[in-house]
Amino acid sequence: MTVGPLAVALGDPAGIGPEIVAKAWDARRQHDLAPFFAVGDQRSIEAVWGGPIRQIASPDDTLACFDDALPLIQITDTGPIVPGEPDLAGARCALDSLELAAGLARSPMVGGLVTAPVAKAQLYAIGFAHPGQTEFVAERCGIAKANTVMMLAGPTLRAVPITTHIPLRSVVDHLSVELIVAKARATDRGLTRNFGIERPRLAIAGFNPHAGEQGAIGREEIELILPAIEILRAEGIDITGPLAADTMFHARARALYDCALCLYHDQALIPLKTLHFDEGVNMTLGLPIVRTAPDHGTAFSIAGQDMANPGAMIAAIAMAGEAARNRLVHA
Amino acid sequence: MTVGPLAVALGDPAGIGPEIVAKAWDARRQHDLAPFFAVGDQRSIEAVWGGPIRQIASPDDTLACFDDALPLIQITDTGPIVPGEPDLAGARCALDSLELAAGLARSPMVGGLVTAPVAKAQLYAIGFAHPGQTEFVAERCGIAKANTVMMLAGPTLRAVPITTHIPLRSVVDHLSVELIVAKARATDRGLTRNFGIERPRLAIAGFNPHAGEQGAIGREEIELILPAIEILRAEGIDITGPLAADTMFHARARALYDCALCLYHDQALIPLKTLHFDEGVNMTLGLPIVRTAPDHGTAFSIAGQDMANPGAMIAAIAMAGEAARNRLVHA
Repeated sequence: MTVGPLAVALGDPAGIGPEIVAKAWDARRQHDLAPFFAVGDQRSIEAVWGGPIRQIASPDDTLACFDDALPLIQITDTGPIVPGEPDLAGARCALDSLELAAGLARSPMVGGLVTAPVAKAQLYAIGFAHPGQTEFVAERCGIAKANTVMMLAGPTLRAVPITTHIPLRSVVDHLSVELIVAKARATDRGLTRNFGIERPRLAIAGFNPHAGEQGAIGREEIELILPAIEILRAEGIDITGPLAADTMFHARARALYDCALCLYHDQALIPLKTLHFDEGVNMTLGLPIVRTAPDHGTAFSIAGQDMANPGAMIAAIAMAGEAARNRLVHA
Repeated sequence: MTVGPLAVALGDPAGIGPEIVAKAWDARRQHDLAPFFAVGDQRSIEAVWGGPIRQIASPDDTLACFDDALPLIQITDTGPIVPGEPDLAGARCALDSLELAAGLARSPMVGGLVTAPVAKAQLYAIGFAHPGQTEFVAERCGIAKANTVMMLAGPTLRAVPITTHIPLRSVVDHLSVELIVAKARATDRGLTRNFGIERPRLAIAGFNPHAGEQGAIGREEIELILPAIEILRAEGIDITGPLAADTMFHARARALYDCALCLYHDQALIPLKTLHFDEGVNMTLGLPIVRTAPDHGTAFSIAGQDMANPGAMIAAIAMAGEAARNRLVHA
């Protein structure tokens, strides 16, 4: 059984998505990328890139042309495209691209889904009712958002924020033993399926300075994290912690685990982006399909100037390709 | 006017302090370290190091022997010393060393104070009533703890945590416009005095994910940080923010400021220790004297095995020497 090509949704046509996808195709041999096809409006790429594009009708046509041209499934144009100037027609195009790419990714002929950045404000304006692309994809896959996990990954660190885009002061109200256990389980299984790690080593951070110093500086470690660890270990999951968050992300410490579980957004994102700002990948665990995205936004301010760094998109495509291959073995 | 030698308190005699101070003396030429003398029990060094030690009676004797031997002001022994096995007599020795070194550092013949790590539990057991060495030194200098600032510094990042060792859930109750303003002022002045930066560029982090997204994910940026920035700018202080905490610590971002102001312990310490685990220095700003320390603990588990990395102690001595020289100009 072979792995199908990856579907890459171009995101907002006025953002840097089309440019970084085209640049990733330029770098396909250097990075040994799995074959992929773009889903979006061909004009959004032509506005920023002079390379060859081949419109295809089906993912099955990808392999035949991938060496010579960027394969693309065309989304019917809905208006003029000006890099750096988002509008509602562009948001419509981004949403149509996402819908089609996600649908194709659910079929066995496609290996996985990679999504370029979208402009949320414009999407909301055309009636998009999900917080972001992740939630949309989860719904299309029939999976509750609560059962998915956002994992950020760079070359030397994988990190999962157990809570994400909520005010820091309300994190304690969202944390529970059940939530920690659920996220750790999904992370454990996701590392096996997507990365082929037979028995993932998880490390969970403390919530307070110095992981609370046995309750002297806060009790979340004692009341939430340690009970969760106990449950997880009883299930055979390899998890250590709670570790002092400030001393678990240097090089020697990172070598001791496969993924860090963090309690709040910045606890995971600060070390990830400090180390791997230009190559961070967002992978959604807990879905029936492979899904990755570069961990950055549309960057409208530099769109159309040939300035966009394709590093994170290249890493997202490479990780999706690796995950698709691993899933053949670790279904 | 010349700068006097630095006083280096050896910390707990059973910890790694004596070993890393001796190793720093070994590396004095390689790192062009300012002359320094140790304060502690000679036997604690002899237990872990075979190099030459010269007992001196006064800091003024340092220069005459620093090239050939580690100068040391002897603290009378109070019991047997076994590396890795702290006891109350050792805590007494550590406290006496700190007291004498801090006292000498307040005299003009000494350039500054560097402190090796102590064992707080043992210090508390002999009646030490301060949270740590910093507070002790501040009191001896006649400065209220609230007017001092803990700054962590590595080769490519300086960071100040505006709150320190308190539970994360209570940070919001401690933060105020006044506290942020006071810490920023002291940081601004400290960077000029200790590092010779005429007009320091400060960057302050947001409290919430993405710095709150204009109030969509928390309001501390709007209610506390922005009003503080306004006051500070009116005083002529160069401060930017609130910046999204996850995107302000990668290399290109760090190049845009001299010091990051962070709202809570791990927001400052995660990036600092992720980047500079073996060379982090803790400098106390707001004191009439120069004071630095390596940003690690006693490491009793590796004491006496010649395994301790002196990098942070070397960096602490180098930074104290630099600060002492800068203070001649920027009093």
